[in-house]
Amino acid sequence: MSGYFITFEGGEGAGKTSVLRSIEKKLQEQGYDVVSTREPGGIHIAEEIRGIILNPNHTEMDARTEALLYAAARRQHLVEKVLPALQAGKVILCDRFIDSSLAYQGYARGLGMDEVFAINQFAIVDAMPDLTLFFDIEPKKGLDRITANKDRERNRLDLENLRFHEDVYSAYHQLVDRFPNRIQVIAADQTIEKVEQESLTKILDFLADKKV
Amino acid sequence: MSGYFITFEGGEGAGKTSVLRSIEKKLQEQGYDVVSTREPGGIHIAEEIRGIILNPNHTEMDARTEALLYAAARRQHLVEKVLPALQAGKVILCDRFIDSSLAYQGYARGLGMDEVFAINQFAIVDAMPDLTLFFDIEPKKGLDRITANKDRERNRLDLENLRFHEDVYSAYHQLVDRFPNRIQVIAADQTIEKVEQESLTKILDFLADKKV
Repeated sequence: MSGYFITFEGGEGAGKTSVLRSIEKKLQEQGYDVVSTREPGGIHIAEEIRGIILNPNHTEMDARTEALLYAAARRQHLVEKVLPALQAGKVILCDRFIDSSLAYQGYARGLGMDEVFAINQFAIVDAMPDLTLFFDIEPKKGLDRITANKDRERNRLDLENLRFHEDVYSAYHQLVDRFPNRIQVIAADQTIEKVEQESLTKILDFLADKKV
Repeated sequence: MSGYFITFEGGEGAGKTSVLRSIEKKLQEQGYDVVSTREPGGIHIAEEIRGIILNPNHTEMDARTEALLYAAARRQHLVEKVLPALQAGKVILCDRFIDSSLAYQGYARGLGMDEVFAINQFAIVDAMPDLTLFFDIEPKKGLDRITANKDRERNRLDLENLRFHEDVYSAYHQLVDRFPNRIQVIAADQTIEKVEQESLTKILDFLADKKV
């Protein structure tokens, strides 16, 4: 694997998706071959799995069924999109990956982070991200940002109560402690320009270290 | 859980499906409240997952994606059908369950029995079968039976080569060694009447032991 796999993580309204778009452009300007993606990433089988997960009629879906379906969709997206790009030496920027499952389903939904990690290890084998940026903002502030942005589409998770988002936030901090080398914390409670700059610096430092 | 969860396992052409039907009737005649099922068991979400697995256009499906999807469908069938029947004190006869995934995907497809066991443990938690009948017949003989029966519908697995079915057979024997208390071996290379009688005796002995 000659490329680099970089994931963007955080709660709702942390700004990671728009920062990812801006970083993609800036890395390309510096000559990097960049692929940006998010699950299910337009992969046909993964889209079909996602359709089962998100179908609002599936109110009887068990939380473990859901976690296994996310892991299945992750596997297919990894095999069809991420691994080929890594093999081609590209820089992959991925909006959410394994840490989201650990935080949302493992911790906030109460399935257990270690248990959800185990099924995701089966899915990804040894394709853990090389670098993860965690966009750190208090849940209440992140949710206020979403509320202020009238254009943003609401999804099912945005509508969970504040306690759920506080659990997700706590889980991300546990992950930072668990994977201190992989996960870099970005102070996301700043202007978007500063968050972009801090993120770009972390990524360029990481890529420069790898080149040496 | 006051009921009993009994699974039927074996290679193709071992006769387990027709034996299961006959056992169901005989147990009912003896006054047992019996539910017979097989995955995906008419459970809507499990049927949809099965549809993704079996879609012949999905030639790009990765073996790990497939294993995770089977585990997801198993979870939903368990939660919606098996566990409620167990709680209601019924005897559940299930045509294939976790051992099929261990034998077919874990061993014959080469994913590793322990790894496939781990994701299935996530799916079933502690709902392992109370009793499993393994219908033991040499793969070549089982396949000859299928070929002789013109009415039987061929599925994708029937068409795998003999080597694959020999691997499945070897895997079942490893499972018998690993779970000697749970898995009872039925000599399936006999007349159907004898196989039915031997299976019924094993199940009645098991149920009688539990009553004492």
